Amino acid sequence: MSEADEAERHGAVAEGPRPDWLHVPADLNKLHPEIWSRTAERGADGVLRIGGISVTDLAEEFGTPAYLFDEDDFKARCAEFRAAFHDFDIYYAGKAFLCRAAARLVAEAGLSMDVCTGGELKVALAAGFPAERIVMHGNNKSDEEVEYAAAHGVGRYVVDSFDEIDRLTGLGRRHDVRPRVLVRVSVGVKADTHANIATAHDDQKFGFPLVDGDAAEAVRRILADGVLDLLGLHIHIGSQIFGTEGFEAGTRRVLALHAAIAREHAVELPELSLGGGFGIAYTSAHHPLSPVELAARLRAIAADECAALAIPVPRLAIEPGRAIVGPAGTTLYRVGTVKHLSGLRTYVSVDGGMSDNIRPALYDGVYATVLAGRSSAQGPMLSRVVGKHCDAGDIVSRDDYLPADVRIGDMVAVPGTGAYCRSLSNNFNHVPRPPVVAVSRGQARVIIRRETDEDLLRLDVG
Amino acid sequence: MSEADEAERHGAVAEGPRPDWLHVPADLNKLHPEIWSRTAERGADGVLRIGGISVTDLAEEFGTPAYLFDEDDFKARCAEFRAAFHDFDIYYAGKAFLCRAAARLVAEAGLSMDVCTGGELKVALAAGFPAERIVMHGNNKSDEEVEYAAAHGVGRYVVDSFDEIDRLTGLGRRHDVRPRVLVRVSVGVKADTHANIATAHDDQKFGFPLVDGDAAEAVRRILADGVLDLLGLHIHIGSQIFGTEGFEAGTRRVLALHAAIAREHAVELPELSLGGGFGIAYTSAHHPLSPVELAARLRAIAADECAALAIPVPRLAIEPGRAIVGPAGTTLYRVGTVKHLSGLRTYVSVDGGMSDNIRPALYDGVYATVLAGRSSAQGPMLSRVVGKHCDAGDIVSRDDYLPADVRIGDMVAVPGTGAYCRSLSNNFNHVPRPPVVAVSRGQARVIIRRETDEDLLRLDVG
Repeated sequence: MSEADEAERHGAVAEGPRPDWLHVPADLNKLHPEIWSRTAERGADGVLRIGGISVTDLAEEFGTPAYLFDEDDFKARCAEFRAAFHDFDIYYAGKAFLCRAAARLVAEAGLSMDVCTGGELKVALAAGFPAERIVMHGNNKSDEEVEYAAAHGVGRYVVDSFDEIDRLTGLGRRHDVRPRVLVRVSVGVKADTHANIATAHDDQKFGFPLVDGDAAEAVRRILADGVLDLLGLHIHIGSQIFGTEGFEAGTRRVLALHAAIAREHAVELPELSLGGGFGIAYTSAHHPLSPVELAARLRAIAADECAALAIPVPRLAIEPGRAIVGPAGTTLYRVGTVKHLSGLRTYVSVDGGMSDNIRPALYDGVYATVLAGRSSAQGPMLSRVVGKHCDAGDIVSRDDYLPADVRIGDMVAVPGTGAYCRSLSNNFNHVPRPPVVAVSRGQARVIIRRETDEDLLRLDVG
Repeated sequence: MSEADEAERHGAVAEGPRPDWLHVPADLNKLHPEIWSRTAERGADGVLRIGGISVTDLAEEFGTPAYLFDEDDFKARCAEFRAAFHDFDIYYAGKAFLCRAAARLVAEAGLSMDVCTGGELKVALAAGFPAERIVMHGNNKSDEEVEYAAAHGVGRYVVDSFDEIDRLTGLGRRHDVRPRVLVRVSVGVKADTHANIATAHDDQKFGFPLVDGDAAEAVRRILADGVLDLLGLHIHIGSQIFGTEGFEAGTRRVLALHAAIAREHAVELPELSLGGGFGIAYTSAHHPLSPVELAARLRAIAADECAALAIPVPRLAIEPGRAIVGPAGTTLYRVGTVKHLSGLRTYVSVDGGMSDNIRPALYDGVYATVLAGRSSAQGPMLSRVVGKHCDAGDIVSRDDYLPADVRIGDMVAVPGTGAYCRSLSNNFNHVPRPPVVAVSRGQARVIIRRETDEDLLRLDVG
């Protein structure tokens, strides 16, 4: 008897390759709390509700696909980071998701903000975000960007290159101002989800290498010129990180430089940024640390190392983006086509795809899926939720189980899409981008409106 | 003596890892003809000219970054495909690059067009493209899309699923029309740049599998219903393909089905589409076939197999996108920051990046680079041209040589960016998208205008 025959004899659907971490859920209708925004629940009628509103009502009012933004979840995570990291500066990483409404919530929560470009800065300022609480990142800030930032009183710059030291020093001299800076140090530590790599040298574009003395030389030049106000050093070791081993390795390396600077120049740099990269649960295989545990570990790592170096602990900073906004987002799609590939899996095609979420194609991002508009008593079916784009890599969720009766017209929801989905969205195949609908306590409002075909043609002037 | 010492003793710059195919060019100022659009040349003043205009003038008038569209190159490639494939139908694949101006050029060249969505269809129709020369693709065409397509008289649909057969059959009955269709067959052949994979079963979303009888069943249903006008079968085996082995394997498999249909149903399907995927030269390592050679090979493959099956050769079709528009595009950037990483390479940061070209990050796309605004007598420097985005994967050209004196303010041009760059462009880090500037015989005109910060904020209504 073949394996497939045997599986069928036992009533199971023959299935193709799937990842080791994926298990058949005990209850397909249940929402795994770690991967859903906090107000998500399945109503008594079986319909997914977020922010107290059923997705049926949301789809009727706003259409599909749509990004749903759970405002209370976002606020709660801001508050939890604020409380857990009470002795840190917390910069919300705007690149994960930024619009005026989000910027206002970040400001109200008492967090600071990290922007990477003049465009992100303009959005933050348009929301009334206090400029002095903004840090400006970027490996290639233009003259126009730093002039604009300085004119608006941006609080800090993370300087990334000798060219930028020259650029900011020139700016400081021209305007008789003293830009406050942190020096981004490339520490040769790359932390990934499960693996930490520590090398002498990072072959990437960001920062001043520690190993060949460039970072120390950058500090030397800044202090010698005296134009820039050097507040401290900065590291960033990766993204979607679950452990703290990479932070420990990176912190040790950068604190050694911090201590060497104190010895060489007799200056105590008051700040140290450990960057961001804190992971979230996209599937049941992910188990992120709580902000409280994360704070305790980072605090202890810095304290231990500073004690060993016999230096005071500088004011620490972190830059969470995904960890705050990722879980607040859910994408709502409608199923248009269902295709069973015998012995492999079922392809469920939805009305969006790589234009609204390019992370699966770009970063091998993994996502869970649930049937959203109703519950089902059917058994599990190995599914791949795909989009409508003309690209074999147009996958929304590579591996999950959906009920076997998923059909045309059903809604499918994908949790954890708050970060790097809208911000990386595109118009591939001339597909307009979905709206972002904020939901809270039974109220829904559009914070980024849906693009129209007319919006796309408006740029087409030839 | 260490390797690095020895390299320095010989006057070379110590370098980090680079791919095997990359060689130091004999002349850094020379434009490799295979990878540049045909009007590209370096003027007597050392400045790159495209369409008879210097990039200095173009940058002054239109700013950087900018996509340059060599209209005469595009027209020439349309004409060459038209001539070489005189006995084929040629559908320009709009997903590669589409705007009204490009659609008009395709129409004037006598080519047909392949669209994947209602959005692409609307652009083509807005340009006055004849609807009957349009084929509509897509694994998940919506009811609205097929209604819209039918209302405008689209010539053909490539049906991708049983659900779509139902959808189009319903539409045909409702409107008493007979949509003309090709059945997309998943032949288990995947052709990549250098490797062809032939399996029984494709684990991807497109088409009806050949192996489990779904493709034959789709044909059976269509013929039994009698509502749809079945014109033939369709395959698509990949993209950026250089050889024809994959086409040969795919054509054999699909022609076996074509012949079986003739036997079972006593119908001679008049058409057969071999899809697209013809590769272009992004770097000196790529050597694409000419349209003439490609046509000769595909013609022979089909003729030989049809002779062996004792069936007439159906009218053949191809769907080139990249092969027509890829080489016509060049992206012009300005350098903002230069960073030498000792023993590794030099990072040259430009004023764009993964927002205007996500192919390096998304598909490991490779690109060449030249110093564009001047020539240089300096020696070669192993360079990585990167963008200004906050992502380590924000790479424009991973490996190439630039003159050792490349500096802030220089312009760098990247050839081969006509396909899948503007069409996949995004606003990551709130960076507005560059314009597409058509150049021809000393004249330049904007065909897609530059996005502004205001364009981005216009959607931000919260």
